[in-house]
Amino acid sequence: MTLQNPSLAQALQAWLQALTQAGALRHMPAETLPLAEANGRITAVSVWARVSAPQQHEAAMDGYAVRTADIAHAAADDPVVLQLGEQALPVDTDDPIPPGYDALLPHEQVTLKEDGSAIIVAQPTHRWQHIRTLGEDIVNTQLIVPANHQLRPADLGAIARAGHRHVRVYRRPRIAILPADSGAQPPPGSPPLVDNAAVNALILGAIAEDWGAISHRLTAVDADVADLEATFLAALDDHDLVVLNAGSMAATATLIARHGEVVVEGLAIRPGHNTILGHAHGKPVLGISRYATGAILTFDRLARPLLRHWLGQDQAHRAHITATLTRDLSAAPRHDELVRVSLAQVEERTVAVPLSRGAGATMSMVQADGIIHVQRGSAPLPAGTAVPVELLRPEHLVAQSILHMGSHDLTIDLLADLLRRSRPSRFLRSHHVGSLAGLQALARGEAHIASAHLLDPETGTYNIPYLHQYLSHVPIVVLHFVERTQGLMVQPGNPKGIRDLHDLVRPDVSFVNRQAGSGTRMLLDYQLQQSGLPSSRIRGYERCESTHLAVAAMVQSGMADCGLGILAAARSLGLDFLPLFHEQYQLIIPRALYEGELLAPLLEIIRSDRFAQTVAALGGYNVDRMGELVSF
Amino acid sequence: MTLQNPSLAQALQAWLQALTQAGALRHMPAETLPLAEANGRITAVSVWARVSAPQQHEAAMDGYAVRTADIAHAAADDPVVLQLGEQALPVDTDDPIPPGYDALLPHEQVTLKEDGSAIIVAQPTHRWQHIRTLGEDIVNTQLIVPANHQLRPADLGAIARAGHRHVRVYRRPRIAILPADSGAQPPPGSPPLVDNAAVNALILGAIAEDWGAISHRLTAVDADVADLEATFLAALDDHDLVVLNAGSMAATATLIARHGEVVVEGLAIRPGHNTILGHAHGKPVLGISRYATGAILTFDRLARPLLRHWLGQDQAHRAHITATLTRDLSAAPRHDELVRVSLAQVEERTVAVPLSRGAGATMSMVQADGIIHVQRGSAPLPAGTAVPVELLRPEHLVAQSILHMGSHDLTIDLLADLLRRSRPSRFLRSHHVGSLAGLQALARGEAHIASAHLLDPETGTYNIPYLHQYLSHVPIVVLHFVERTQGLMVQPGNPKGIRDLHDLVRPDVSFVNRQAGSGTRMLLDYQLQQSGLPSSRIRGYERCESTHLAVAAMVQSGMADCGLGILAAARSLGLDFLPLFHEQYQLIIPRALYEGELLAPLLEIIRSDRFAQTVAALGGYNVDRMGELVSF
Repeated sequence: MTLQNPSLAQALQAWLQALTQAGALRHMPAETLPLAEANGRITAVSVWARVSAPQQHEAAMDGYAVRTADIAHAAADDPVVLQLGEQALPVDTDDPIPPGYDALLPHEQVTLKEDGSAIIVAQPTHRWQHIRTLGEDIVNTQLIVPANHQLRPADLGAIARAGHRHVRVYRRPRIAILPADSGAQPPPGSPPLVDNAAVNALILGAIAEDWGAISHRLTAVDADVADLEATFLAALDDHDLVVLNAGSMAATATLIARHGEVVVEGLAIRPGHNTILGHAHGKPVLGISRYATGAILTFDRLARPLLRHWLGQDQAHRAHITATLTRDLSAAPRHDELVRVSLAQVEERTVAVPLSRGAGATMSMVQADGIIHVQRGSAPLPAGTAVPVELLRPEHLVAQSILHMGSHDLTIDLLADLLRRSRPSRFLRSHHVGSLAGLQALARGEAHIASAHLLDPETGTYNIPYLHQYLSHVPIVVLHFVERTQGLMVQPGNPKGIRDLHDLVRPDVSFVNRQAGSGTRMLLDYQLQQSGLPSSRIRGYERCESTHLAVAAMVQSGMADCGLGILAAARSLGLDFLPLFHEQYQLIIPRALYEGELLAPLLEIIRSDRFAQTVAALGGYNVDRMGELVSF
Repeated sequence: MTLQNPSLAQALQAWLQALTQAGALRHMPAETLPLAEANGRITAVSVWARVSAPQQHEAAMDGYAVRTADIAHAAADDPVVLQLGEQALPVDTDDPIPPGYDALLPHEQVTLKEDGSAIIVAQPTHRWQHIRTLGEDIVNTQLIVPANHQLRPADLGAIARAGHRHVRVYRRPRIAILPADSGAQPPPGSPPLVDNAAVNALILGAIAEDWGAISHRLTAVDADVADLEATFLAALDDHDLVVLNAGSMAATATLIARHGEVVVEGLAIRPGHNTILGHAHGKPVLGISRYATGAILTFDRLARPLLRHWLGQDQAHRAHITATLTRDLSAAPRHDELVRVSLAQVEERTVAVPLSRGAGATMSMVQADGIIHVQRGSAPLPAGTAVPVELLRPEHLVAQSILHMGSHDLTIDLLADLLRRSRPSRFLRSHHVGSLAGLQALARGEAHIASAHLLDPETGTYNIPYLHQYLSHVPIVVLHFVERTQGLMVQPGNPKGIRDLHDLVRPDVSFVNRQAGSGTRMLLDYQLQQSGLPSSRIRGYERCESTHLAVAAMVQSGMADCGLGILAAARSLGLDFLPLFHEQYQLIIPRALYEGELLAPLLEIIRSDRFAQTVAALGGYNVDRMGELVSF
């Protein structure tokens, strides 16, 4: 019977149960490997010592083997003379100690008689001094490593010392990944589209290898059903798990059902809802989401337990910490959600900042430090709630994260890059929430740095009036960063002959705007007012997008003739750019942090010539005052 | 100028400084790899998006592309009819959304007119509903991953989505490991000796691979100097680091000095004192301890920083916890010590039990959970002191360790093996401190289980009188484990015709004894007394060894004719065994733990038929009462 939309835990349980019945949940068969090839592999049987180590009493230094009884009464004023060859035998490091001798005197502890016939000993010594005794390290027959043990370098050494040259380990599970080409085409003139399924195959293959499996990314088949079926059947033949990443959930279910059993169809989880669990020809089959984030998260929670079982391992340990939510999270009524978050230490708290929730948001998995599992139907989690977060990166790195909230600018990415070059463990995490929200986050102690380009229409100055309004209770410093150029983005070749804001009121020109509260919108309104241009005469003034790129996309598609934005956005979609205004893009930092160790390497980069030159070379930026303090 | 015996930190600093001057401390050169081969590698340059993702607005479901403005007033009682091909366009998942359309209605949200010409819409929808908008995931020109970033599967997916098929990563450092055969021979009739240097090469090569390097274990050269020199020079040619594991420290220093500079000769650290740091032909050279534990620890602390630097990484994070010492640790006056410890959670404390301190103790690295760095010249650390411990295994596994102290028996190893089979994360850590010390450890709350075979000479009973004496304040249970056979170990063929204890007083028979307080010694004394044999008449009664195997070794070497011990010890050195007595080997467990979750899987194994049968098959054991409670 097929389960429809169970929870992850129910789905996994049902699948494992069905696989057990189908005989597909046994440990991997064992294979024999030379020790030099076995690092990281998992023992299929325990390893017992076949010899002791040392195999005999051995000299731990160069010197003389002696009998302690002979020198028990030796003293500086009453030394004992030991005849070489009878009472004292010269031995080098690692040499066996002959029977009857029970200590070693290093050369520097004795005096050799001038004729070389004897040594003079001026003090007694302990039994077995400087001798590695038989079995001191390993006793023949003792357990070296048990079964189900992942072999580390030191284990290999001990196994070699215990008399083995080979070890029996589980063979690596073999995983086939079958992507199907969606057949979707890129926009004319764009580079070839990277297919979702091909991206997933790349990711899942790498994950499987990290888990100790061998992954085969099969040649992308097209959505043709017969072709897919043939490839599927061939994959079942010589793999332990087949992952289908091909077409719709219904088609996948039909395919599996024709050759086996569909155990689960759909999961009550986002991302990753479109998941099928089943088996065919005695092999587990996993139909996985076409979208990277869903694919990664469900693969981790469904395929990994299988692999760990096959390799004799307990379920993976998932480390958690407690963090404070910076945004409200609401639960969906009928599905759980795995929310990716950035984590950072701000003041005394660890804060969790939710990232994009889209199933296709590959960057959310690149940037995520952790995951919050929001249970379906649970009470809303308001901002400020302390929640458990599953860690995706080691906990000690959380304290190394610098959390930036505010307006997006390409130069912030550049800064993030240079920071990693100079301090590889320190991360600059940027959340593009806009200028105003950045200041508010700083005020609530939810960020280390805010960035803003907020023009005050009354004074014509940037940011300062807003700081007085939102951050009056926090001692802060303001840093000049860049003066950047805002301008009109127009179609290539500027077919409408647009030159400046005055053209916006032309009846043949349509505009696309930014949302109220954004720095760019404030700039537009201020400049319209200065020029005496009424916004009511602009066609499209009320049509708002919330990012530079979204505005550019409207222009590119011909839905609008122009929009106000920055050079980088125009460039990324191949639009022409008409520079019009300069605006101050500044950084706001709490004074305590400004003087602290966390931000020091970042501030050093901001004030370096190298960074200023790199930014200037981008075009569209003035960096003359980069890093200077703004007085206010 | 060569530094003699500096601390590890001083040595590393001096080496890195000399390498910088020699131009040997630059990042690795970059190489270009296909994404499918780049998992785990480290970016040499940052990766920026070349396309946005999605590259255009895309359908997130199958359905109809519509304009939200057209249906803004749609209602169930006033539906809107949209003509297909004009106001609504059928699209499949991933299809581009044509310009002008700004929402997608899934099939289930609309009604198709019977003639297929239009859809009927009964409610409005949000802009961009079910559409993945251009750049929603990745914005062209944005930073995907910075330089010095270790690539994870999700990173590879994002890089592919951002329009790249290749990535520039640091080439893997190449490390040559040159072992020299010591020329030492095994005892006659023993299997070939596993050379220390070959074991080290196996271990160090695997460690280097774990760190992302390519390691070459060069063919073992013999100690012949010219041969070693030629191999050394060839290795310098095409490696980034050459590790010499060949002969004496002096010889290694001479070799390096002839072609470069010796920076450090000897370290103020144990194990690992015999270390040389230098460079030759612009390449770092590391002369490393011949003993595995010293080699592993110094390689980790000296070579790893080099590799991390070459690969643009910060120094490795070393996680620490605080644990309570179970034994006194004293500091040496002139060298630091890296003491390996087992860690376990007993009651509320984490306890640290020091393991063997020998440089050649490979098993100490197999068993170690952590390392205590004892500074030279520091105050003694008495048992009970809380000390920082560097973790060698993940912290969460500490709570999974079952700590056993007491008498050693092969069956305990068997138990450890079966435990790992049934509960792969649960470890049985055994410390062979002897029966009495095991009970004392339990009394101090420093173990979960003790094992004992202590015969009370007055009552002839096992263990119980000692429990009253040492554990009266701790509620405990006592479990029958095995009844094992003690007997006389004699040379193969029993040349002296020994039959039982009466032969010990023969003038032509020499004996080797166990130390006072050991269970075996108590057994001997009791049996001698029962038989009316005076110990004063036994030749060698006063000569004591502290393990079964040490006694066996004395017999094997001919230093004694016989000793009392267990079958396994005799077997491991190929001695004959004369069974004489049966003794009770029992397990003692605090009642609270006996009923707890930690030991449950262990107790289950002890009471399983499978375990009893396996032990019985070893020979020398009676398992009839295995797992039964002893009443007392």
